Amino acid sequence: MEINLKSLREQVYEYLKEQINKQNLKGGDYIDINALSNLLKISKTPLRDALLQLEMYGFVTIKPRKGILINKLSVDDVKYFYEIIGALECAIIQQLCLYIDSQLIEKLKVYNDVMQKALDESNFDLYYKNNLNFHNSYLNLSKNHYALKIIENLRQRLYDFPKKAHYLPEWEKRSTTEHDSFIELLEKDCFKAAVFMKDVHWSFSVQEKFIMEYYFRQ
Amino acid sequence: MEINLKSLREQVYEYLKEQINKQNLKGGDYIDINALSNLLKISKTPLRDALLQLEMYGFVTIKPRKGILINKLSVDDVKYFYEIIGALECAIIQQLCLYIDSQLIEKLKVYNDVMQKALDESNFDLYYKNNLNFHNSYLNLSKNHYALKIIENLRQRLYDFPKKAHYLPEWEKRSTTEHDSFIELLEKDCFKAAVFMKDVHWSFSVQEKFIMEYYFRQ
Repeated sequence: MEINLKSLREQVYEYLKEQINKQNLKGGDYIDINALSNLLKISKTPLRDALLQLEMYGFVTIKPRKGILINKLSVDDVKYFYEIIGALECAIIQQLCLYIDSQLIEKLKVYNDVMQKALDESNFDLYYKNNLNFHNSYLNLSKNHYALKIIENLRQRLYDFPKKAHYLPEWEKRSTTEHDSFIELLEKDCFKAAVFMKDVHWSFSVQEKFIMEYYFRQ
Repeated sequence: MEINLKSLREQVYEYLKEQINKQNLKGGDYIDINALSNLLKISKTPLRDALLQLEMYGFVTIKPRKGILINKLSVDDVKYFYEIIGALECAIIQQLCLYIDSQLIEKLKVYNDVMQKALDESNFDLYYKNNLNFHNSYLNLSKNHYALKIIENLRQRLYDFPKKAHYLPEWEKRSTTEHDSFIELLEKDCFKAAVFMKDVHWSFSVQEKFIMEYYFRQ
């Protein structure tokens, strides 16, 4: 019982993410647990624990006698994840409305500026990092670590595991204009800003065209 | 890899729940994994898997060299769980607003009536069962099984594991009047009904007096 599961889960997670991004593996593929054990030099019991964690969070399915199935992300998955993230971000922001100050607004503006510049330079990694910073700068004001953990896991499901064949500058551009609107609302009416996050930024139907293009276009 | 984890998790869960309700165990107690293995006649590897699942869902903490700690529920836990359940119920109801029909309304009225009668007869088990039926009759219309699983787990955290020394008829009574208001709103304005669930029924601050009395009064 003395294994550091977190780092093992992360190790296995990072390996699978890398293989998917290199397109050596994709959703729907099976991996052999023995081969993985040899490859990562992790003995089978702790590897199994790490995989059970990944299974519980929905990344893989452990199939008896078949190996580890890397789950595909379906359109419904994306829809349901958007619904959950939107609802939780909205609730968290509303709880924080008394604590929104000019310092936070300033931070949000800086992150969003960097995101816009990163897009101009086609630097997607920088864009993505600052997108996380943007959302985290208010989310992390909340002490609801249970909600934050749910959001973090769903973000990983949305952004880390699917094969990213291309990215959509048009979508990312629109994201930053939505961030602008969010900041403006936050300055005037925090409750409306919270609802905007749910009903626009994290709305599956509003973002559907881009989601279909980004995740499901062959 | 061929163990039916779900049933084992449930078996271990039911055992711990029973022991807590009989007051043989309480939050903050340690259990010895060897003793548990002998008692439940489960060999240690699958027992460990079941406990890892319970740990991931927050019921216990596995402490190296000390055993399995049964987690206590803190005031903050209850606050955070209410925030998450409220946000998700609200989002689910809003997504369902097009599908709310007289058949559902009728069902809700019946469940709430049974709840009120159960209270008059001090039949808490019947009350509790129909409370679940009440909420499930709209939640289960949603296909967002991820959100439903989160809610189910948090409900278990709130209702199954803490020691129930007493129950609060006054609180339960008020819950059923809130259900009445919810049904009325649902008939007139589904979006307002959804917000009522979040801002009243699942609001920690609105329910705080009862929560403190129910969970934390010595």
